[in-house]
Parts: sequence; structure tokens; C-alpha cells
Amino acid sequence: MHRLTHYRLCPRSRSLRLAAGELGLALDAVEQEPWAIGPQFLAVNPAGELPVLEISNGPILCGIYAAAEYICCDLETSGDSHTPPLNLFATDPEDRAEVRRLTDWFHNKLDREVTRELLFEKLYARMKKEGAQGPNPEILRVARTNLKYHLSYISYLSDQRAWLGGDQLSFADLAAAGHISTLDYLGEVSWQDYPIAKAWYQRLKSRPAFRALLEDRVPGMPAIASYPDLDF
Amino acid sequence: MHRLTHYRLCPRSRSLRLAAGELGLALDAVEQEPWAIGPQFLAVNPAGELPVLEISNGPILCGIYAAAEYICCDLETSGDSHTPPLNLFATDPEDRAEVRRLTDWFHNKLDREVTRELLFEKLYARMKKEGAQGPNPEILRVARTNLKYHLSYISYLSDQRAWLGGDQLSFADLAAAGHISTLDYLGEVSWQDYPIAKAWYQRLKSRPAFRALLEDRVPGMPAIASYPDLDF
Repeated sequence: MHRLTHYRLCPRSRSLRLAAGELGLALDAVEQEPWAIGPQFLAVNPAGELPVLEISNGPILCGIYAAAEYICCDLETSGDSHTPPLNLFATDPEDRAEVRRLTDWFHNKLDREVTRELLFEKLYARMKKEGAQGPNPEILRVARTNLKYHLSYISYLSDQRAWLGGDQLSFADLAAAGHISTLDYLGEVSWQDYPIAKAWYQRLKSRPAFRALLEDRVPGMPAIASYPDLDF
Repeated sequence: MHRLTHYRLCPRSRSLRLAAGELGLALDAVEQEPWAIGPQFLAVNPAGELPVLEISNGPILCGIYAAAEYICCDLETSGDSHTPPLNLFATDPEDRAEVRRLTDWFHNKLDREVTRELLFEKLYARMKKEGAQGPNPEILRVARTNLKYHLSYISYLSDQRAWLGGDQLSFADLAAAGHISTLDYLGEVSWQDYPIAKAWYQRLKSRPAFRALLEDRVPGMPAIASYPDLDF
């Protein structure tokens, strides 16, 4: 079985778990706390970043870019068949470019402007014992302001299309969902202000691949009550 | 002809110009100053990021991820033939994963830890008239310390392999070169400390695709004297 090294609230890891679920790919998952990355992990991925996916009798894929493209675009030839085949990076090159543009948007822009900051301030810093004085209110304020802009963008895209990247479910949806589900866990998403984005998230949340994520909990940092609810 | 919107010292734009050069793809280039991005540019790429590549009779590719994958992997079917065909993302899936891991390393990790900071402090802030008091010495110090680590990593990779991503020239080399060439322009690379990385850069610098980059100059911010020299 393929072996995933992830952290339960890591948005990039979450998007890979969702993709594996959609593709019917079973993963043997082990956790690595992002605030406690040491020499053993760095020997595998010197970038010090999650996720890492070790393909059974195959390569070790470091980081979401290499791992997502590999399991979605390259692994299909290896005998994992689906009916109908699910291509999370689209088949048409122009559609694929749009999926990649949005994947980059969520995994880099949204990550940098919102998720990374909120995860660090609210969780990782505390776990590292660096945040004895609590989160920095100015960083929280900026990240929350940025999040409004991103939720509006998700609403805009969902209003134009069946899914964020186009007519079909794509890795762009899963990348977005990796971040939004973590932000929802932390109680950062004011769903009542974004009904269209909410409808998009509701559809994703109802998919079987999402179930495992909705069961994740962090000791000492409970999820908001509506986190696992399909009707939220 | 395809139309590239770039900035001359933008590392991601540079890697795309190099890839286009290697692939024999002619581009009609227009500049967008990164410190002066306005509504007109945002209407095309709401992420506000360079490069943007408008494919003739084709899609508009926003950002380096979508643009590089498209011209290297998807555009080849459209009649641009090469002998032998140059595949900058490798043909074997495992090799391709390694090219993508390193592309992500240079365009995201090196960018975040070094190039973005130095470009902003030394050039963009001044152009925006935000840096009247000059660069922040603490930010410069941290970015320069980080750069040492990245140059060591380039040395390590070059010592193991013919090119950074493997046996063949790949987009990983061009991504790295996009950043290193900008840092070299700014006089930030102490080549005498990194002879193996220097030999790698020398080989790249000698390629015809590199010539246009070596002619770039920013008014009011001269390149170091050895910037265009193949023997530096």
C-alpha cells in the first residue's frame, strides 16, 4: 500500500487525501507534526514540507505539486482502474491549465495569505510552546480580512461553473477544500455570508472521500460544533 | 505569436522565457511592473502575479505553474516540432515528479525565503516609493543567510547529477536559473564559495536561450559587472 506522511489539519495533505479517496486509492497514513519536523523527516524531504507520499514499489513524492500530479496523471496507467475514469486534472489542455491556475491559487496564495498564518498563530505556535502569550491579534486580523476575499472568489467561481475549475470536479476543488475544511475546523468561516460558497462546500462535504476528514480531531483544540455536519 | 506579460527581473517570468527559448517558441513580450499592478492586469490574472502567457488562438495562462506545464507538456502537439524533442518535464513519471519537486522548491521555497524578499527590499519598495529609508537590514540578513543554504543545495544536486533534476536539462534548472540570475544581477551570489553551483550556472548561461536575459538592465539599478560574462 502507498504510504502517506501527513498532518491531520495540513491543508495540502488534506487535498491529497481527498484526491486519493476520489481515485479509490488506499493509503497507509502516518502523521508528522509540522511543528516538530526533525532530521529524519528532512532526510526524506529536505524542503521540510507535507505531504510526502511513498508509492508502493515506486518513487517517494515530496510536496503537493509532485504528489498530486503523480497520483492524478501518472498513476492511472498502473492498473488502478475507474469506471468512468476520473481525471482530476481534466483532459483538455486548456481546462487543465485552469485547474492548475486555481490549484496554485489555493495551495500557494490562499495558503500564504490565510491558512498558514491562522494555523501557525492558533495551533502550531502553541504546540511549539512559542505562543505562550497567545496569537498575534494583528496577524489574525489581516488573515481574516484576506479570507473574506478568498471566500468571495470561491463564491464567484461557483456561481459561474458547476465546480471551481470547470464542469467537472477537479483537483482545484480538492485544493480549495483542503484549506476551507481546516479553516472551518478552526471556526474561521462565516458561512452565512457566503451562501454560494457554502453550497459548493456542502456538495463536497457529502462525498464519501470527505468522511475521514470530518472525523479528524486535534487534542486540546476542538472543532466547532458544525464541523462534521452535512447540514451546517 | 504568443504574448508574454512579464517583468525583466521577475524570476518566474525568466524561467518561462528560458523554457520558451529552449523550446524554440517565439514570444511577443510586454512588461508589467510588479509594483504597479492595477485593475487592468487583475482583470486578466486576479492573483496579480507574473508571468501571464496568452497563447495565440488559445488560452490565457496565468502564473508559472499553469504556463510552464502548458508550454512544456501540452503545446508540443500543436506543430512546434524539435529534433530531438526536448521534454523539459521528463518522460518518465518518476523523473517528472523529481522535476516538479525541484520546480516547487525554487519557485516557492527559494522565492519565499530569498528572492521575493531581496527583490522587494532592494528594488520594488524603492520603485513604489515605499522604501525612502532604504532596505530593512534585518530582512536582508535573513534572506542572505537563507541563500547560502539554497546555493549549497544547488551544489549538492549538481554534484550528484548532470543537471539539477536528473540526467537531462529540465524545467527545474530553468526555475533555479530564473532566481539565481536575478540574484546574480543584484550582486547577491558569492560564486567563489560555490564552485560546483558556479559550473552549473556557467553551463546554463552559455546556452542561446539565456542571451536575452543577460541583456536585461533596470534603469537606476545597474547589474554587477560580471552579470553578462560567461567567464565570471
